[in-house]
Amino acid sequence: MQRFALIGAGFIGAVHAASLAAHPDVEFVGVHDVDTSRAGALATRYGTRVLDASEVFDASRLDAVFVASSTDTHAQHLRSAADAGLAVLCEKPIAPDLAEAVAVADHVRASGVPAMVDFNRRYDRDHAELRRVVASGGVGDVELIQLTSRGPSLPPVEYLRSSGGQLRDQTVHFFDLARWISGQDPVAVSVTGSALVDPTIAEFGDVDTSVATLSLPSGALVQIDSVRRTSYGYDERIEVMGSTGLVESRRQRRGNVARYGRAGVLDDGLHEGWFERVHPTYAATLAAFVDALERGVEPPVTLDDGVRAQAVAEAASRALESRRQEVVTYP
Amino acid sequence: MQRFALIGAGFIGAVHAASLAAHPDVEFVGVHDVDTSRAGALATRYGTRVLDASEVFDASRLDAVFVASSTDTHAQHLRSAADAGLAVLCEKPIAPDLAEAVAVADHVRASGVPAMVDFNRRYDRDHAELRRVVASGGVGDVELIQLTSRGPSLPPVEYLRSSGGQLRDQTVHFFDLARWISGQDPVAVSVTGSALVDPTIAEFGDVDTSVATLSLPSGALVQIDSVRRTSYGYDERIEVMGSTGLVESRRQRRGNVARYGRAGVLDDGLHEGWFERVHPTYAATLAAFVDALERGVEPPVTLDDGVRAQAVAEAASRALESRRQEVVTYP
Amino acid sequence: MQRFALIGAGFIGAVHAASLAAHPDVEFVGVHDVDTSRAGALATRYGTRVLDASEVFDASRLDAVFVASSTDTHAQHLRSAADAGLAVLCEKPIAPDLAEAVAVADHVRASGVPAMVDFNRRYDRDHAELRRVVASGGVGDVELIQLTSRGPSLPPVEYLRSSGGQLRDQTVHFFDLARWISGQDPVAVSVTGSALVDPTIAEFGDVDTSVATLSLPSGALVQIDSVRRTSYGYDERIEVMGSTGLVESRRQRRGNVARYGRAGVLDDGLHEGWFERVHPTYAATLAAFVDALERGVEPPVTLDDGVRAQAVAEAASRALESRRQEVVTYP
Amino acid sequence: MQRFALIGAGFIGAVHAASLAAHPDVEFVGVHDVDTSRAGALATRYGTRVLDASEVFDASRLDAVFVASSTDTHAQHLRSAADAGLAVLCEKPIAPDLAEAVAVADHVRASGVPAMVDFNRRYDRDHAELRRVVASGGVGDVELIQLTSRGPSLPPVEYLRSSGGQLRDQTVHFFDLARWISGQDPVAVSVTGSALVDPTIAEFGDVDTSVATLSLPSGALVQIDSVRRTSYGYDERIEVMGSTGLVESRRQRRGNVARYGRAGVLDDGLHEGWFERVHPTYAATLAAFVDALERGVEPPVTLDDGVRAQAVAEAASRALESRRQEVVTYP
Repeated sequence: MQRFALIGAGFIGAVHAASLAAHPDVEFVGVHDVDTSRAGALATRYGTRVLDASEVFDASRLDAVFVASSTDTHAQHLRSAADAGLAVLCEKPIAPDLAEAVAVADHVRASGVPAMVDFNRRYDRDHAELRRVVASGGVGDVELIQLTSRGPSLPPVEYLRSSGGQLRDQTVHFFDLARWISGQDPVAVSVTGSALVDPTIAEFGDVDTSVATLSLPSGALVQIDSVRRTSYGYDERIEVMGSTGLVESRRQRRGNVARYGRAGVLDDGLHEGWFERVHPTYAATLAAFVDALERGVEPPVTLDDGVRAQAVAEAASRALESRRQEVVTYP
Repeated sequence: MQRFALIGAGFIGAVHAASLAAHPDVEFVGVHDVDTSRAGALATRYGTRVLDASEVFDASRLDAVFVASSTDTHAQHLRSAADAGLAVLCEKPIAPDLAEAVAVADHVRASGVPAMVDFNRRYDRDHAELRRVVASGGVGDVELIQLTSRGPSLPPVEYLRSSGGQLRDQTVHFFDLARWISGQDPVAVSVTGSALVDPTIAEFGDVDTSVATLSLPSGALVQIDSVRRTSYGYDERIEVMGSTGLVESRRQRRGNVARYGRAGVLDDGLHEGWFERVHPTYAATLAAFVDALERGVEPPVTLDDGVRAQAVAEAASRALESRRQEVVTYP
Repeated sequence: MQRFALIGAGFIGAVHAASLAAHPDVEFVGVHDVDTSRAGALATRYGTRVLDASEVFDASRLDAVFVASSTDTHAQHLRSAADAGLAVLCEKPIAPDLAEAVAVADHVRASGVPAMVDFNRRYDRDHAELRRVVASGGVGDVELIQLTSRGPSLPPVEYLRSSGGQLRDQTVHFFDLARWISGQDPVAVSVTGSALVDPTIAEFGDVDTSVATLSLPSGALVQIDSVRRTSYGYDERIEVMGSTGLVESRRQRRGNVARYGRAGVLDDGLHEGWFERVHPTYAATLAAFVDALERGVEPPVTLDDGVRAQAVAEAASRALESRRQEVVTYP
Repeated sequence: MQRFALIGAGFIGAVHAASLAAHPDVEFVGVHDVDTSRAGALATRYGTRVLDASEVFDASRLDAVFVASSTDTHAQHLRSAADAGLAVLCEKPIAPDLAEAVAVADHVRASGVPAMVDFNRRYDRDHAELRRVVASGGVGDVELIQLTSRGPSLPPVEYLRSSGGQLRDQTVHFFDLARWISGQDPVAVSVTGSALVDPTIAEFGDVDTSVATLSLPSGALVQIDSVRRTSYGYDERIEVMGSTGLVESRRQRRGNVARYGRAGVLDDGLHEGWFERVHPTYAATLAAFVDALERGVEPPVTLDDGVRAQAVAEAASRALESRRQEVVTYP
């Protein structure tokens, strides 16, 4: 049994609260948020209590902390958890700034506490099966990976302005997937992008539609297309071509109903949004973390994984501007 | 808020306990089972208590009862709930014997308590969408319905011996779906069947592979194939052809991963068993019942629906033996 | 090189003319039709000549005759070919009347000439692959076969009036497929049918929507649904469930284009009509016949196959009326 | 009726000979090849005659020439046809060297003869339907196009050595498709590539696996992945995402048979090779050319289209080496 505190009671905090409450090996000790009424609502709903700032890193009553607060607070909470000797599961990114992320990862590593970044897409049932096929040699040597990341609607421009850009904010999940699936760290990256949906975002140097090409040490290539707004739902898809075959994690449909008529066959479309698609991954990510704690092994997604995906995003951001291939430098 | 007692803590009782515990408008008062240790385990897991026989129909502390005990006890519990003035949601069948089922349905109706049969397949997301398309005229007049009901493995022969036969035990769910989708009561039925998987079951007059053809009042036809053992997983599928189109609730796959190779494209297969397929329907069925109670309207699947599906199964059982079309008589 | 005459220059005769002209091992000697201008047009188009009635069975200049004239003339042409010592490939049926068909088949067999019925669906690429899988044990013992035969539009009522009924005219192709796929002769059949599209055809005892259930000697079951008019194109599909798996020859689409939008994913629909679907089978059927002639072996679809499918259709027609299972009697 | 000569009796010449022989409005006057025995074999098979070098541009007996000889002879034959006043349909490329291609195109244009490049993929049924959807506004403004071009096996290294490289030889077809589908001329291109299948080809600066990203004037992006050797058949696929939807020309399967088993559902795979996939496009391309001649309008794919696709390939070849985005310069 692992005793957890949750930090953050916003939209994603509420999702994690449900996972914490439902996990049979978790004791959900309490929830903390700078907005105490929001914390209170969550606590009531899941039969737990509100924790104040002094209680949330109390190692006498806790084993682990789940950090789901705003992005700019991750670094500080990770350090606090490490200092208190608490295991910590943290939403990405470790810190918006790569150098700070590296420093935090070093600090946490030095403390010896188990720590994990919530790259939840690794726990998508289909992506995980695809990776299992690749890792077991099911397609031979990896030669070409394609990842599609397309959200249904543009986030608010204020959000985008402080997001670090599409590559750091959205594509970073797929940089991680590329590393995880291939088992390789990209060595170089090229990017082409446009602001097609809203020209405003070009004003602060961002794009909403982009294509990144990564080179892996083996010579294999990775294509990632990132789109902020489709008009047909949430579109995520991975394809790995190897020397002996291809494996694909298909676009997921929201159902299995087909209508046959003169005009053709109309099938159920894609999920409305990213949440419908990735919802089951949250509980699975938590379960993987708890399992690692229970078995006393290193959590399956390390802070270093977070740092490395971020390093790819930095090089990609440079490439978008320079219009040339940029080498990826890992700290 | 509806206060529920659960009767039955076996496999399916445990499924319903999870639904009761998770429903925001349900207070899960307690669970009763003739095996008190089994009831105790469930109560512990879902933070509720064990109820004894005297407590389970106590209208001062309950609003509703969920009957998930063994088939031969359904009738008695339905009568007790009615006499106590409690709403009741009951697993099918009302009673193994049609005449007794009719008597119970009459008794409950006379009492005026809200009552519902757990024909959970009506709450399958895909089947419900198919029915919505049909009901809204999306395929015109219904002309031909095909239903496929195929389980992955033969249940134990002892179970089958007392099951009433494939048509009453398995196909009855699909007789209900045919009525629900078409909005019509079948008038006649023909059946052909064989014991192909295990010849033992032919000894007590049962079959494991059968085809039933129903005639509807409009002249439309219904085909239902029922199979006890496939070798490729759980196979359920509905197709409705009408005068202006066709709508299909497809075979559901267990995932969306495809492997391309020389031999072809290998996709994820069907669900392992019926439970993986229909799992989400249980919570949806409960939600529909609770919603009806909250709104003070009649539950969407009545005991009469249970009786009528059973009447079709009786005629079908006669047709299997007579090898001729039998008229369906509704009580 | 096989020297062929073609009898019949109507719609289907023109299709066969194209196959004869294109086959590298066929010398297309000429075409005969009671309508000589129709024959002349075909002859011009394919660089061959018109044959009169005396030339069409001239064994000194021909090796084989392809009979594609009207149904009521098949028997006579088959006898003439046999008497002339010419190999003969004939459209189904051998004769509308089963007894006459048997007599003709006996006559031709006695003559020793190679003869084949044009059950062209056996040469559909997908159906043939399905049968190969079944015959090679790919699904184990056959347990349940489903065949779907659905045309897009009702033929003219005058045609239907003299067609012998849906079971003899349309379903007979699928009785043949059931025999061919299973390698078994059906022993009994039940049928339920309705006139849903045009009530006029009920006046002469016919139906436009029907379901036939066959029993095979092994106990396996066969379902065949026959529909005269869909509103979504030509729908043909076969599925064979066996003790170790299932194989399906899917509905064929007219293309592979998909449109993703808010409403769902719209794929290309089915073929407009039966001709678009079965078109490639005609040349393949001819090729199989020519190949048998060249190799001096028995043609792969015999007149006896034609007779046996017809015998099933006769029993099915009785069952439609009697509303009970009828035993199939083979001559 | 258009009188055609065919130049070239190799593999692809034989394909065109079949199309010429089958087209109802074409008189297939004769075939020329430097290898007269090869020409003779084709002439015999299609009932036409062998033409010598002096006859093949004889405007008194011909209306058009189909140039299907080796790549290095295209330019000369195009000039000869223009000088003779004959319409000309020519395999791509016009000339291996871009400057020479421009000169030839200018020469032919000045002559006024109708001329067309055989970019046959435009006549793929599915690609054409996709383009029709895009052109009719079915997906709104084009934002992201993905093209996949993957052959099943590496061509002989000697062929590759003189092919001009993967981008000029293979990808050029898809540069043309990108222009045709979008209605825009790419302004810039980036390329990343590797020699993964055979390191020998890296010795002469070529790649077998590459990813090209094009920028269109509207800001829309185009991804093209080109692969010389898959292990799962011929893989070609196009997807166009626009502001209001997405349209896809799917991977084509070789059939429609599915096998369900414990391991999953095994479907028919992709076509063995490019020829099986694109076979029907050849006759369709010829038909489009003949139709333009008959109607006296400009052929639908001009020499300028050939030049422009080649210009993109030149910029792409520079980008592969420079590892930076290169501007496309059109002559």
